[in-house]
Amino acid sequence: MKLNCDLGEGYGRWQLADEAAVMPHIDMANIACGFHAGDPLTIQGTVQLAVENGVEIGAHPAYPDLQGFGRRSMSCEPEEITAMVLYQLGALQGLCTAAGTRVRYVKLHGALYHDMLRDQSVLRAILAAVAAFDRTLPLMLMATPDAGRHRDIAAEYGLDVLLEAFADRRYTPAGTLQPRTEQGAVLHEREQILQQVREIAAGQVTASDGRQYPLAADTICVHGDNPEGVATIVEIRKVLGHRAS
Amino acid sequence: MKLNCDLGEGYGRWQLADEAAVMPHIDMANIACGFHAGDPLTIQGTVQLAVENGVEIGAHPAYPDLQGFGRRSMSCEPEEITAMVLYQLGALQGLCTAAGTRVRYVKLHGALYHDMLRDQSVLRAILAAVAAFDRTLPLMLMATPDAGRHRDIAAEYGLDVLLEAFADRRYTPAGTLQPRTEQGAVLHEREQILQQVREIAAGQVTASDGRQYPLAADTICVHGDNPEGVATIVEIRKVLGHRAS
Amino acid sequence: MKLNCDLGEGYGRWQLADEAAVMPHIDMANIACGFHAGDPLTIQGTVQLAVENGVEIGAHPAYPDLQGFGRRSMSCEPEEITAMVLYQLGALQGLCTAAGTRVRYVKLHGALYHDMLRDQSVLRAILAAVAAFDRTLPLMLMATPDAGRHRDIAAEYGLDVLLEAFADRRYTPAGTLQPRTEQGAVLHEREQILQQVREIAAGQVTASDGRQYPLAADTICVHGDNPEGVATIVEIRKVLGHRAS
Amino acid sequence: MKLNCDLGEGYGRWQLADEAAVMPHIDMANIACGFHAGDPLTIQGTVQLAVENGVEIGAHPAYPDLQGFGRRSMSCEPEEITAMVLYQLGALQGLCTAAGTRVRYVKLHGALYHDMLRDQSVLRAILAAVAAFDRTLPLMLMATPDAGRHRDIAAEYGLDVLLEAFADRRYTPAGTLQPRTEQGAVLHEREQILQQVREIAAGQVTASDGRQYPLAADTICVHGDNPEGVATIVEIRKVLGHRAS
Repeated sequence: MKLNCDLGEGYGRWQLADEAAVMPHIDMANIACGFHAGDPLTIQGTVQLAVENGVEIGAHPAYPDLQGFGRRSMSCEPEEITAMVLYQLGALQGLCTAAGTRVRYVKLHGALYHDMLRDQSVLRAILAAVAAFDRTLPLMLMATPDAGRHRDIAAEYGLDVLLEAFADRRYTPAGTLQPRTEQGAVLHEREQILQQVREIAAGQVTASDGRQYPLAADTICVHGDNPEGVATIVEIRKVLGHRAS
Repeated sequence: MKLNCDLGEGYGRWQLADEAAVMPHIDMANIACGFHAGDPLTIQGTVQLAVENGVEIGAHPAYPDLQGFGRRSMSCEPEEITAMVLYQLGALQGLCTAAGTRVRYVKLHGALYHDMLRDQSVLRAILAAVAAFDRTLPLMLMATPDAGRHRDIAAEYGLDVLLEAFADRRYTPAGTLQPRTEQGAVLHEREQILQQVREIAAGQVTASDGRQYPLAADTICVHGDNPEGVATIVEIRKVLGHRAS
Repeated sequence: MKLNCDLGEGYGRWQLADEAAVMPHIDMANIACGFHAGDPLTIQGTVQLAVENGVEIGAHPAYPDLQGFGRRSMSCEPEEITAMVLYQLGALQGLCTAAGTRVRYVKLHGALYHDMLRDQSVLRAILAAVAAFDRTLPLMLMATPDAGRHRDIAAEYGLDVLLEAFADRRYTPAGTLQPRTEQGAVLHEREQILQQVREIAAGQVTASDGRQYPLAADTICVHGDNPEGVATIVEIRKVLGHRAS
Repeated sequence: MKLNCDLGEGYGRWQLADEAAVMPHIDMANIACGFHAGDPLTIQGTVQLAVENGVEIGAHPAYPDLQGFGRRSMSCEPEEITAMVLYQLGALQGLCTAAGTRVRYVKLHGALYHDMLRDQSVLRAILAAVAAFDRTLPLMLMATPDAGRHRDIAAEYGLDVLLEAFADRRYTPAGTLQPRTEQGAVLHEREQILQQVREIAAGQVTASDGRQYPLAADTICVHGDNPEGVATIVEIRKVLGHRAS
C-alpha cells in the first residue's frame, strides 16, 4: 500500500509544504505542472527532492486557474482538455528529463479530477492525452464503485488505472466520499485516521453508517501541507510497516 | 538555406498568422511554448500543420509575459531561466509526442533571445537547459560577429548552433542589426528584401553604409503574421529555388 | 435605440477590432477589464477613443480566463464573483478617471453573462458588486421573457437594468436566442440583419417559427471585430436614422 | 512616526501573513493590487481588516509578474507603466469603495519601486498615473539623499511625497541601503532593530561605518509575513510609544 501526496504546489514566493520533511515518508509524489500551481523553479526543486528520496513522480495536471488553485470547475471542450493535459505532462517531463528521471503515472488535480470522475467525456479527453503521451503511464483514480467501469474505459485507450483511497475522509455506505459540507466528512483525530489506514490496507473501510464495506485501493492519499500533516504521515507509515525513513 | 518562421503565436481567441497559408512555404517552424503566446490548443494545431507539411519543429521559449508578448526584458536569475526553458521545451515536446514527432532545435523568443546575445550568463542558463533536455538539439542564434564565440560556448555544453540571418532587417557595417528606432532599419520593399535574400544565400550582405560584408548564415528568418508577409515568403522561396509548394 | 459593442478586447500584441473605425458608429462601448481581455494600455486606448467619439463607456467584466476569452463557465463562489467584479469595475474606472470620464453602465462578458442569466446567485453576486461600487450604474441584460424578474431583483439592490437585443441572432418563439449549434441561429445576410434591427426598433422580432413576437429592448448589440461587422454597423446606423457619423 | 506594512500579498490558496494579527499594530497598509499578488477576494479581506482597525490604505502596485512576485525588473515603456499603475490604483479603489473607504497614498512594490528610485522616466511614468488618478495621494518613496530631488519632481506633477525608512536594513554612510548580498545588510536581532527605530524616530541612523547620519523619514516600513515579524512590530510600537493596540 503506497502513500501518494500532492507536492510542488507552491508558486514563486508562495510555498505550501515543507517538502524536504514530507518526501522521505511517501512513495509517490503528485507534482503540480504549472496550471494550478508549480512555477518551473518550484517544480524543479520538488523533482530533485523526489529523485533524492527515491520517490516515484506523477504528473498532477489541472485546469488553468492559479487564482482558484484549480479547484473551480471550468467548462472546457474535450479537445482543450486533451491539449492542456499533454502540455502539462510534457512540461513536467521536461524538468524530469533534466533530473535524469521520468513521469511514472498521472493523477489529475482538483476540479479536473472530480469532473473526470463524473463526466465520461472529460475522462476520455484525459485518457486520450495520456495514451498519446506514454501508454505505460497508469491513471490514478478514486477507488469508488465506478472503478470497474473506469478501468474498462481506460483499457479502451490501452491504459491501466491505479485506485486511491483517502486516509482522512469519511466514506458513505455507497462507497463515495461524504461531501465536505457535511459534519464529520473530514477525519481530524490522528487515531481515527490511522484506524482508517489499517482498514484500507486490509481492503475495507468503515462508512458513515458504522458498517464495514470492501474498498480495493492501490494507494492512499496523504496531505503534507502543514506540520501536523507531516507528523500524521510518519505515523501512517509506521502503521503500514514500511521502510524506516 | 532554410527558411524559419515564428508560429503558434496566438493565444485562445487571438490568432496572428494564417498558418495554413504560411506552413507550405517554410522549412522550420519556431513554435511558441505558452509563456509569451501559445495556449495548448493553438500549439497543437501548429504542430499538426508542421507535421502535415514536413516542416521541422523548433521550440520558441520566452520570458513569462503574455501581456508583453515576451518582448520585455525581465531580470531573471540564471536558474530561473534554465527551469523556465526546460518547462517550455518539455511542454512543446509533450504536444509533439502526441503528434508523432519531436522538437528538432531551439530558438529563443523576443527579449530572452536578445538578452542571450548580450549576456553570457543568460546564454549559459539556456544552454544548460537545452543540454539537459536533449543534447542533439542545436540552438539557433543570430549570425553576428560574435557567432564564433557563441559557438565555442555552446560547444562547452556539447551543443551545436544554427546561425540565422534576417531578410528584412538592415545590417550595420559591424554585422549587427540596425536598431528599429533608426530610419531604414526595416526593409519594406519586397524587391529590397529579395535582393538581401540573394546576398545572404551567397554569404554576404549590403550594410547600411552601402558596402558588402560577409555573413555566414544557416537559415533566414521570415515573418508570416500578415498576408503580405506570406506573399513575400513565397517570393523568397522562388529566389532560393526551393521545392515547389 | 442605442448600439452597444464589445471593445478593448485585445491583449498586448493581439488586437481584434479596428476600434477607430467602429467607435464613430456606436453609442455604448462595453470595454474589457483585463480578466478575459484588455491589458492596461489597450483599455486606455479604447477609453480614449470612446471619449473622443462621445461614446458612453460600460464595464465589461468577465471570469479570469485569458486563455478561454472568458467563454468558459467557472464554478466560482458568489463572494468570489462579487470581489472580481468590483476589482474590474475599479480598474476600468481608474483608466476612465485619468481620461476625465467615468463608467456609465455594466455589461458582463461571455460565460459570466450567461451564468448570470440562468443562475440567480450569480446575478445577485454581480448586483451586490455594482450596487456597492456605484448605485447609479444600470446593469445591461439580455431582453428575454425573464426581463421583468431580472428587473425586480435588480431593484432589490437599488439598480436599474438596460435590456439588449441582438441584431444578428435568431430568436425562438419563447423569446430566447436560438442556440448557436442550431442551423440558422446566426444571421449572416446583411439585409436579414437590417430587417431584424427595424423590427427590434419597432418593439418586436420575427422568431424561428416565422411569427412576430413583442421584444422590448433599450439597446442593440453589434459586433465590430472584423471589417464586415463595421460595415454592417454603418448600415444599421442608417436604418435607425441616427446622427451622421 | 507611522508604521507601514505590505499586506494583501497572498493569492488564492496561498497566503503569507496572519493579517488579523498584524493589522492592529500598524498605521498604514500597503495593499497588493493583483499584479504581483492579491486576488480580488484576498484584497477585499485585507481592505476590510484595515477598515476595522482604522488603518490607512495605500495602493501597492507592481509589475505584472505573479511568478516572480514583482521582484524582477521588466523593461516596460513609460506609457505601459502609467497605464498599469492606473489600472491597479483603480482596482484597489473599487474594492475600497465597496468597503466605504478609499486609497490614501501610493507605494510601489518590489522591482518597480527600485526602478523608480534609479530611473527618472519610471518615476515620471508613475507620477503621471497618480496625478491623473487623484492629486491628493502622496507617493511613498525611500528616504535617501535623493529625496529632495524626488520631492521636486513629484511637485511638478502636483504631488507630495512620503519618505520611508527601514527598521531592519543596514544603511550605508551614503544614506542608501546596504545591498542584501552583503553580510550584515539585514538586521535580524530584535534589539538592533528596536535601536534603529529609536534612531530613525530621532531623525538619524547609525550606518555601516558605525557613525550616525541624519535621516528624515515620515514612516517606518515593517514586515508582517511571519510570526516573529509580528512580534517585532509589537515591540517597535512600544518603542514609539504609540496607541495601545
